[in-house]
Amino acid sequence: MNDFVRIVEVGPRDGLQNEKQLVSTADKIELIDRLSATGLRSIEATSFVSPKWVPQLADAAEVFAGIQRRAGVSYPVLVPNEQGYERALAVGAEEVAVFTAASEQFNRTNTNAGIEESLLRFEPILARAKADGIKVRGYVSTVLGCPYQGAVPLADVVRVAVRLHGMGCYEVSLGDTIGVGTPLKARAMLEAVAAEIPMEALAVHFHDTYGQALANIAACLELGVRVVDAAVAGTGGCPYARGASGNVASEDVVYMLQGMGLATGIDLPALAATGNWLADRLGRPTGSKTGKALAVS
Amino acid sequence: MNDFVRIVEVGPRDGLQNEKQLVSTADKIELIDRLSATGLRSIEATSFVSPKWVPQLADAAEVFAGIQRRAGVSYPVLVPNEQGYERALAVGAEEVAVFTAASEQFNRTNTNAGIEESLLRFEPILARAKADGIKVRGYVSTVLGCPYQGAVPLADVVRVAVRLHGMGCYEVSLGDTIGVGTPLKARAMLEAVAAEIPMEALAVHFHDTYGQALANIAACLELGVRVVDAAVAGTGGCPYARGASGNVASEDVVYMLQGMGLATGIDLPALAATGNWLADRLGRPTGSKTGKALAVS
Repeated sequence: MNDFVRIVEVGPRDGLQNEKQLVSTADKIELIDRLSATGLRSIEATSFVSPKWVPQLADAAEVFAGIQRRAGVSYPVLVPNEQGYERALAVGAEEVAVFTAASEQFNRTNTNAGIEESLLRFEPILARAKADGIKVRGYVSTVLGCPYQGAVPLADVVRVAVRLHGMGCYEVSLGDTIGVGTPLKARAMLEAVAAEIPMEALAVHFHDTYGQALANIAACLELGVRVVDAAVAGTGGCPYARGASGNVASEDVVYMLQGMGLATGIDLPALAATGNWLADRLGRPTGSKTGKALAVS
Repeated sequence: MNDFVRIVEVGPRDGLQNEKQLVSTADKIELIDRLSATGLRSIEATSFVSPKWVPQLADAAEVFAGIQRRAGVSYPVLVPNEQGYERALAVGAEEVAVFTAASEQFNRTNTNAGIEESLLRFEPILARAKADGIKVRGYVSTVLGCPYQGAVPLADVVRVAVRLHGMGCYEVSLGDTIGVGTPLKARAMLEAVAAEIPMEALAVHFHDTYGQALANIAACLELGVRVVDAAVAGTGGCPYARGASGNVASEDVVYMLQGMGLATGIDLPALAATGNWLADRLGRPTGSKTGKALAVS
């Protein structure tokens, strides 16, 4: 089995978009540049959704134009529609990400569109991306549960993942958006999707609402997945906010992978230092236990 | 495979002994009484070590005398030597726990005695306990790493565990005291010990320094272990303290077990409420993500 795991660092996008404390454009650029120096291969840089929805990322164009892109590192950006795709292309993005959900109600609440409507909206993006030589990553949200409908049938997760892969997404990230999953359910979900899509084209994306994210990742690694989304400092939910549900912390994932003999190419102390620096910018303790532990050693 | 998992709640002892904020005797009693009402079967109530070593537990006798012991619930107490055993018996303890380490240097630093000296010290305790009808649990510390010697050979863990089991400990708890383990190493360690001691007589005990505890527990459950030590609210290390290394939070373990279809007999909302209550007493946020999430629902 392949012993290299690619971490997709989603902190600058998925992490920050849910942080109430606004981060300056200069700090976002510094964050991404610092992350670029850690050995990460994929850093989701920002989102070209409407600033009305995500005020934190209103400076997407400035951030993307300001970062120093390194050879060998991908900087995907989230795009909700063709307009977002055009804005991303205008600043030189070479990879974009589209997102929908396995839960109809969640997708309607989150994007004001049904799942099918979202998928249809992506088709022209995928077609243009193919012509433009742009890679497209696809996200499926709520793969292990939905705040509105509760349980999400595996068949719905599989159906949406297959559609995204079929329309040309090179990788489909399976997201436990609300962090309710546990290891056996996570593994069963991945197994169901991997029966239809090659494991090499799948990523897992866990939030840590109930503290389960790392256990879920370990369970999925055993099935063979080798791409893991994570956010440095565990951003995406503030430890002081009630019901916080941050992303799993990249530092904790890398610590685990190293201990399991899996390579990431990432300099863990540099990553942890970046997470601790970000936590300072956010004015709160880091959400990474590894970050906390390495701060003293 | 047996689908019941017994949680050994170690918060009142292993958790509190490392908390700087002193907790009143009345609050300790209330903590244990609340825990008794959640469905827990084992609650480590306190420690009869010298108050010089652990000032937080100087009121061991008062706490033990003050709690309402429920039928069907065990209340082990830690004893370092025969004198501690006698103090425990004097207040009516029916179960005690002895502790040593797999690392010689750690044991010397922690208890001022070598491993062999510790084991010899336990022999008369085990002999008396057998005559007195007292159950004895044994702890092995530093099973996945030591702050002084670094890596700990599996053979040393196995040797110490076998000695404790052989001298009459009905259960041996394998402790990653400094929380450095990762899932495959945890599983390999448990597998090595379980080759010599029946799995039914083993427990796992993880600290969460690097956020790995739940992933390690999941890996060990897959090997068949069915006893897990944990501390409500993840006490044992303060989130504000640098290099904190609290116990895994009981609430997070129970959430995972429920999701895996494993029974605990524990009322999770009641457990989480108790953890949140304790965090208030300690004047800090709970160390349990499940506790935090359930506080808002």
